[in-house]
Amino acid sequence: MLEELKVQVWEANLELQKRGLVLYTWGNASGFDKESGLVVIKPSGVEYEKLEPKDMVVVDLAGNQVEGGLRPSSDTPTHLVLYREFSGIGGIVHTHSTYATIWSQAGRGIPTFGTTHADYFYGEVPCTRKLKSAEVEGSYEDETGNVIVETMKGRVPVHVPGILVANHGPFSWGKDAHEAVYHGVVLEELAKMALHTCALNKEIEAIDQVLLDKHFLRKHGKNAYYGQGTL
Amino acid sequence: MLEELKVQVWEANLELQKRGLVLYTWGNASGFDKESGLVVIKPSGVEYEKLEPKDMVVVDLAGNQVEGGLRPSSDTPTHLVLYREFSGIGGIVHTHSTYATIWSQAGRGIPTFGTTHADYFYGEVPCTRKLKSAEVEGSYEDETGNVIVETMKGRVPVHVPGILVANHGPFSWGKDAHEAVYHGVVLEELAKMALHTCALNKEIEAIDQVLLDKHFLRKHGKNAYYGQGTL
Amino acid sequence: MLEELKVQVWEANLELQKRGLVLYTWGNASGFDKESGLVVIKPSGVEYEKLEPKDMVVVDLAGNQVEGGLRPSSDTPTHLVLYREFSGIGGIVHTHSTYATIWSQAGRGIPTFGTTHADYFYGEVPCTRKLKSAEVEGSYEDETGNVIVETMKGRVPVHVPGILVANHGPFSWGKDAHEAVYHGVVLEELAKMALHTCALNKEIEAIDQVLLDKHFLRKHGKNAYYGQGTL
Amino acid sequence: MLEELKVQVWEANLELQKRGLVLYTWGNASGFDKESGLVVIKPSGVEYEKLEPKDMVVVDLAGNQVEGGLRPSSDTPTHLVLYREFSGIGGIVHTHSTYATIWSQAGRGIPTFGTTHADYFYGEVPCTRKLKSAEVEGSYEDETGNVIVETMKGRVPVHVPGILVANHGPFSWGKDAHEAVYHGVVLEELAKMALHTCALNKEIEAIDQVLLDKHFLRKHGKNAYYGQGTL
Repeated sequence: MLEELKVQVWEANLELQKRGLVLYTWGNASGFDKESGLVVIKPSGVEYEKLEPKDMVVVDLAGNQVEGGLRPSSDTPTHLVLYREFSGIGGIVHTHSTYATIWSQAGRGIPTFGTTHADYFYGEVPCTRKLKSAEVEGSYEDETGNVIVETMKGRVPVHVPGILVANHGPFSWGKDAHEAVYHGVVLEELAKMALHTCALNKEIEAIDQVLLDKHFLRKHGKNAYYGQGTL
Repeated sequence: MLEELKVQVWEANLELQKRGLVLYTWGNASGFDKESGLVVIKPSGVEYEKLEPKDMVVVDLAGNQVEGGLRPSSDTPTHLVLYREFSGIGGIVHTHSTYATIWSQAGRGIPTFGTTHADYFYGEVPCTRKLKSAEVEGSYEDETGNVIVETMKGRVPVHVPGILVANHGPFSWGKDAHEAVYHGVVLEELAKMALHTCALNKEIEAIDQVLLDKHFLRKHGKNAYYGQGTL
Repeated sequence: MLEELKVQVWEANLELQKRGLVLYTWGNASGFDKESGLVVIKPSGVEYEKLEPKDMVVVDLAGNQVEGGLRPSSDTPTHLVLYREFSGIGGIVHTHSTYATIWSQAGRGIPTFGTTHADYFYGEVPCTRKLKSAEVEGSYEDETGNVIVETMKGRVPVHVPGILVANHGPFSWGKDAHEAVYHGVVLEELAKMALHTCALNKEIEAIDQVLLDKHFLRKHGKNAYYGQGTL
Repeated sequence: MLEELKVQVWEANLELQKRGLVLYTWGNASGFDKESGLVVIKPSGVEYEKLEPKDMVVVDLAGNQVEGGLRPSSDTPTHLVLYREFSGIGGIVHTHSTYATIWSQAGRGIPTFGTTHADYFYGEVPCTRKLKSAEVEGSYEDETGNVIVETMKGRVPVHVPGILVANHGPFSWGKDAHEAVYHGVVLEELAKMALHTCALNKEIEAIDQVLLDKHFLRKHGKNAYYGQGTL
């Protein structure tokens, strides 16, 4: 069942480690099969070295486990909220990558300080508000998804492919699990650059809208001319 | 004698190097055999590359060398204080890992800035007071253990599996030598994140108690639901 | 056609990745053949792992594609401006390397804080002004080249072999593509050192002119005595 | 001639690269043969990858080249001053390692912030004054050695096995070339830790003399009990 997607999600999870985004089991990647409406996700707390494609867990969008002998990631409910709410999303990644987590812990969104950022995120990488006590004590993982959705209101998920959850860490997404990893790696690098940019120039502000438009749209707009896509 | 434990302690020492926690010989791991009441520890000042399981030294809790042709780590008396005082501890690690040492040198405990921290430490990673002159000039390594015990008063060692010794560096512990290494690696990452979190938001405070409870207890409480343990 | 130069440019592109200057496809190197007046450059958005010498694209100084089945780097017009305007330049590199990009984002040139800097750059690594809206909306990549040329006015390109484009990142150059990579690596290290030098001593100023002269000229002047060149 | 020492110096130079202390050719190690009064040193500007033991250059303490087809490191005169002035020194290393260079550029000595430092340096790692114009324009490399000697006045070289040259970078030494490398690696780590210690606690001061004595002397005094040396 969904064998191809399982391999892809397994590869994406391994790439999180290879790219230095996770220590031990601190991260997870999932993929969404649009046709069946099912999600494939990493099992909870299993070492990356021991993972195999067959260990991937299949759940439906309501959270029912459909296949797999292991318990899914404890963050599964958060992934499911995002798949239900964000259109065009086929993969999600959550990590505690160092620099993105630093911004999350500081409770600050990452301003658009340069074209590296503008090439992937159409504006600030937002940071959620803190969860309220009732949300933490209630369905915590669902509420984490809900506060992400709340924060993304007015933003187009495919144009802002990641977010920081306050006090916690980053989530990123993309058209599939691989692109979600890619955006997680980009977000980590943007976070590192932005941290030191603030230190070096305390008055620095986000780049002009015109430069943001130029860079984002030369890669993502309908007149995109970066890469080989429309050659 | 204790051949299995020697292999485990040897592996734990090597992992300190593999994980980037030690330069040269700047660290040591030990393990405790509850049944015999004996401790296996790394010999003093031997390069990791040359260590073999048979080089591990066996001492009793009073510090008498029971086996081994090499002198035990100069930090052995500190380890012994902790094994005598902390219940449920089967492994101890001491390193001078970069970021944990920075906090030790700065004389500051690491606040609970995020859920990464809360997943492993139930509150602040404390920093001891400075040792008094008489303590340094007396039984220095014993006194290092004593000041750790003093600082941990009111904390449960298995819930706060590491500490910073002021002007010195971190000690971590766990149910065995491997878990002590694991907690040393986690502590180093928390220390790095926390350093930059402070720089990015000078007013940042520890997370709410409710979030600390949620994260620590979902992994460690009796209703833990992270990982595969209770599936 | 230009087979030797293609291999050299291909190698230079791979070295960008090997030296840690690029994430994914975030960089490009080109080489100039003085005799034919042609430029060899990396194709746009192709993964480094998949690049082969035959994928390199040949363009003339006016930007006409002379050979190659792939579209050239989107930064090609910027490279061409520099080849047309700077004499003695045979290779150009553009990256988003972490620390050089941080200075670019902060909009600050890198002062000559030490002899490491003075060994390669005869004075500050300048940072351009921000582009105006009309420049961004017009021929953006040409204007990026133009603002580099404007900023370098009064400086000798072979003595200041790199620059920071505000809000964007570094460009470096040299007598060929390999030397351009070399200067990109040096610039990244200077940027890292300078960032922390500022943090450690907020009053720090550039080194004296006499020390700058000494170091730059012992490597680059007509009386140079570093290396084996004139032995 | 001095074949064994050549191999040792060659190994020490390679280790500088392996340990991450040098970029390209930015460093050199030398060794001193007490019996013959000759110094073996790396040739100037040769890539580490291409170095062989036979490329090492032999000079006497007055700077006359005694053997070797290549020109010695441009820093040779500085090494020679130190061999002439510091007793007990059998190896010297100069690098532009990142964090030690940052302190050099900032013109600040590294305070004894912790026991890691106290284990190797008996007090502050000093930073020289800036060279005067006449010194830079005169016998620059000799004067670099002279200002090191001037700064070390009142300190015992074998107890303070390294120094920062203002605006430039670190020199370290030891009983042979390998120990000089070792001290260079230690100095780099101390510099990194100290940089962030200052950032985390702006009021931090050096550790107490009694703790410095304890740590330095338990490794280096006549009653040393660290390691296996006196077992």
